[in-house]
Amino acid sequence: MTNILQDHIKKTISVDTEKLQLLADFFEQKVFAKKETLLSEGKTCREIFFVAKGCLQIYFVKPNGLEQTIDFAIENWWTSDFMAFLKHTPATFSIKAVEKTNVFILFNSSQQKLLTEIPEMETYFRLIFQRAYAASQKRVRLLYEFSREDLYLQFSKNYPDFIQRVPQYLLASFLGFTPEYLSEIRKKNIS
Amino acid sequence: MTNILQDHIKKTISVDTEKLQLLADFFEQKVFAKKETLLSEGKTCREIFFVAKGCLQIYFVKPNGLEQTIDFAIENWWTSDFMAFLKHTPATFSIKAVEKTNVFILFNSSQQKLLTEIPEMETYFRLIFQRAYAASQKRVRLLYEFSREDLYLQFSKNYPDFIQRVPQYLLASFLGFTPEYLSEIRKKNIS
Repeated sequence: MTNILQDHIKKTISVDTEKLQLLADFFEQKVFAKKETLLSEGKTCREIFFVAKGCLQIYFVKPNGLEQTIDFAIENWWTSDFMAFLKHTPATFSIKAVEKTNVFILFNSSQQKLLTEIPEMETYFRLIFQRAYAASQKRVRLLYEFSREDLYLQFSKNYPDFIQRVPQYLLASFLGFTPEYLSEIRKKNIS
Repeated sequence: MTNILQDHIKKTISVDTEKLQLLADFFEQKVFAKKETLLSEGKTCREIFFVAKGCLQIYFVKPNGLEQTIDFAIENWWTSDFMAFLKHTPATFSIKAVEKTNVFILFNSSQQKLLTEIPEMETYFRLIFQRAYAASQKRVRLLYEFSREDLYLQFSKNYPDFIQRVPQYLLASFLGFTPEYLSEIRKKNIS
């Protein structure tokens, strides 16, 4: 499994293969079962997660007790509560596994050592965060530009496999629909 | 003026002062007048901007011809169309000066040379993008959590100086209000 992260790093930056052998010392590998929690709102956030296989849901719990999904992370994405990770403060949202998910975990106690021993990883993380921020900027524009129904149609066109993979109630929560309304839109656009 | 960027870098990372003297070779300094355009939708985006003094508006033009503000950048913030900058594609939104604004510009033609000659700048930009992404994740949560009226009240509480500084029609556009509706909310909450 280490190879999945190594491959992602090799695709992103140029680095000697022998240096990549050192990576195992810095990352913890873990498998989470479907619906298992990786990070809980209110707990100090000390780690960031790389999805090697599977899918994670990032959400918070609304005053009415319902989960509001704000993001997903699938293969080759990093996720965490990055503000809480940076500031060593309690997480403001939770992360759990949508399906059985294999992750690599980087704890903040290992991060500085990793960056000192393999300085190329500064470039890797610079590019990871640069891309993530660019994608997020694009997302904010889409939120302003499209109605929620149009967002769903855009999403279906751009990520057809993802739409099939994620339970519909989670997709509805992400899009801010009720599951019933999502079901209506789907019927309308299939017929 | 170089000192403003140097100070920001020194606050963010540890780097020899003599290395910082080299910075002037990589950045272009420019002053934009109020309402002057820095980046136009549709034009190839080759640069990123650091605001030394002033305020920038990031927006796109809706089919009805109105500007939709999606973000602002004030002192010590970097901005650009980061996806277009990364992929060397046409910008999907525009940037213009809200007031007279002094910026440092880093062109992609200089970026690689800067990172090679001053490798500490990899750490600087890693931290810049990590913070920007963290802030954006927090913003997405707020967009799901609060009504637009509550967002305005939160915003007023957290950034009182900013609320005074930015023209109300731009603030209304950012919050997705009409200027008239914003004016009503303000009156309601002052009285």
